[in-house]
Amino acid sequence: MKGTILYGPGDIRFEDREDPKIIAPTDAVIRMAATCVCGSDLWPYRGLQPINGPTPMGHEYCGFVEEVGSAVKAVKPGQFVVGSFATSDNVCPHCRHGYQSSCVQREFMSQAQAPFLRVPLADGTLVATPEGPSRDLLPSLLTASDVLGTGWFAADAANVKPGATVVVVGDGAVGLLGVLSARQMGAERIIAMSRHESRQKLAREFGATDIVTERGDEGVSRIKELTRGVGADSVLECVGTQESMQQAIRAARPGGFVSYVGVPHEVELDGQALFFSHVHLHGGPAPVHRYLPKLIDLVLNGTINPGKVFDLTLPIEQVAEGYRAMDERRAIKTLLQP
Amino acid sequence: MKGTILYGPGDIRFEDREDPKIIAPTDAVIRMAATCVCGSDLWPYRGLQPINGPTPMGHEYCGFVEEVGSAVKAVKPGQFVVGSFATSDNVCPHCRHGYQSSCVQREFMSQAQAPFLRVPLADGTLVATPEGPSRDLLPSLLTASDVLGTGWFAADAANVKPGATVVVVGDGAVGLLGVLSARQMGAERIIAMSRHESRQKLAREFGATDIVTERGDEGVSRIKELTRGVGADSVLECVGTQESMQQAIRAARPGGFVSYVGVPHEVELDGQALFFSHVHLHGGPAPVHRYLPKLIDLVLNGTINPGKVFDLTLPIEQVAEGYRAMDERRAIKTLLQP
Repeated sequence: MKGTILYGPGDIRFEDREDPKIIAPTDAVIRMAATCVCGSDLWPYRGLQPINGPTPMGHEYCGFVEEVGSAVKAVKPGQFVVGSFATSDNVCPHCRHGYQSSCVQREFMSQAQAPFLRVPLADGTLVATPEGPSRDLLPSLLTASDVLGTGWFAADAANVKPGATVVVVGDGAVGLLGVLSARQMGAERIIAMSRHESRQKLAREFGATDIVTERGDEGVSRIKELTRGVGADSVLECVGTQESMQQAIRAARPGGFVSYVGVPHEVELDGQALFFSHVHLHGGPAPVHRYLPKLIDLVLNGTINPGKVFDLTLPIEQVAEGYRAMDERRAIKTLLQP
Repeated sequence: MKGTILYGPGDIRFEDREDPKIIAPTDAVIRMAATCVCGSDLWPYRGLQPINGPTPMGHEYCGFVEEVGSAVKAVKPGQFVVGSFATSDNVCPHCRHGYQSSCVQREFMSQAQAPFLRVPLADGTLVATPEGPSRDLLPSLLTASDVLGTGWFAADAANVKPGATVVVVGDGAVGLLGVLSARQMGAERIIAMSRHESRQKLAREFGATDIVTERGDEGVSRIKELTRGVGADSVLECVGTQESMQQAIRAARPGGFVSYVGVPHEVELDGQALFFSHVHLHGGPAPVHRYLPKLIDLVLNGTINPGKVFDLTLPIEQVAEGYRAMDERRAIKTLLQP
């Protein structure tokens, strides 16, 4: 088969690789129904995160089980499955506490932009749907694998409750689905920080009640104005830069909750500023597996349509263009069809 | 009257000052029953925190109301009161969320090592006991003003629940009362990190089940050993240095809770390390007022005896020796009698 490889900044190739096969008895191999490009893929694509030679890419996936190892019990060939971007055995202490993305056996998936994929720890990583879904649900089911699961975790980790005032920092796909998640959790007011018209539009569709285009000090002042000087109950930081973290922390009220779900790049938090901000801070790689059954249900019963974040769909052979479009912000998120 | 003034590193004087009087109609003046030296007073005493000329000291206090301003309704002359080290109106949005130490009208008290004290925002800052307490309860009631309230917040902010495994970093008075608080909240296992025998003894009296004397990497390894590789559910960071913060974060399990209640001094948190630690982080100046009624009750009904942290009692005239004894770690905490 062919698969996606990053050779260096801006250099994505779709080229021959070995077919994935069962290695450990806990593995499964799936035939991809849809995969996509993640905002986090852009860090190494832009040369902002070093790579160690040619690197297979992709960690968002859904598809049909092709083959399973001898120890796999929870899924079987022919089933449609969605899996987390982080593998988990779902039985270790961290998994039992709901932090499957810190499983003692965790591996981060990294070869999913391809027609076939080996998934380690299949029983603890994959969740099967009751039956094969209709084609139009594929984009939304695919989002559960990472971007929706991460947006959902952002809202959950920021303690979004019914009636809450929520700020979402970042209008990438994760931020937009953070808006959707906050709405599902009953937030009354959702302020999306965005300066791109198409993203503002989608944010409103997903449930944003206010848009703030200012950033930094001005952005924080605007949030304070909108909350009568108090600050937000919950702030979802969905970018991962020093500026966005500061903005998030300063937008929350004392005692408020700030979540951060994008890998922070060159972020240093000043202990004293954080102390006097009085916020709760929680984040990390989203434990997507914890949420998968619920998110799949919400998609299958038509409550949510997170697949709308895909505003570009390409045959997987054109993956390089998929990266380019996101890098240049021509696309929010690119879906790849095998 | 005379009061305590810090002139520079190591230079504490007890000298003539003006008698406090009512300035705003919301003020009260109290006659001190007992006051004390705080671990945080040692930062400027040691020259590790700059001061701006001669600085009145002290923020822990309890005593009898001497006089109140015309707008004060909740307390009256003759009543015994305990107040928070941070003033609060108890009606602003932050107060109503339980974060009185971030009250929009907050002032940090700073003249309490004296026989009389003006307390701003008396109604929202002071809590009166039903009657004048017996002398032997004064030390314990005094702790509620800061050190117990802060230890309690540390346990609460670290989400200590019945059955939890808790680590307390720091064996100062706050850490020791963090142990006591965790015990009250039902922790099953409380690991105190301490290398001083007298403090270990008190930690055990307050409820510690294990003592770890190692620090840094070795301390973290020891915690991991004691928790079968998992890490603690709750970690209370009661020091405020870079080393203690790192130690606390690394001692928690993924998804665990870390609180920090001492003003961080030169602490920088690496965003990426914090992200992958997967912990919840919460701290700040303890909202003591939120807990005062409960803590006063627990003292008055004899459930807890936090006053044991005072292992040195001096007439207030000898306040300089009180500082010296704590600085040289000859005393855990010094009570000052007016």
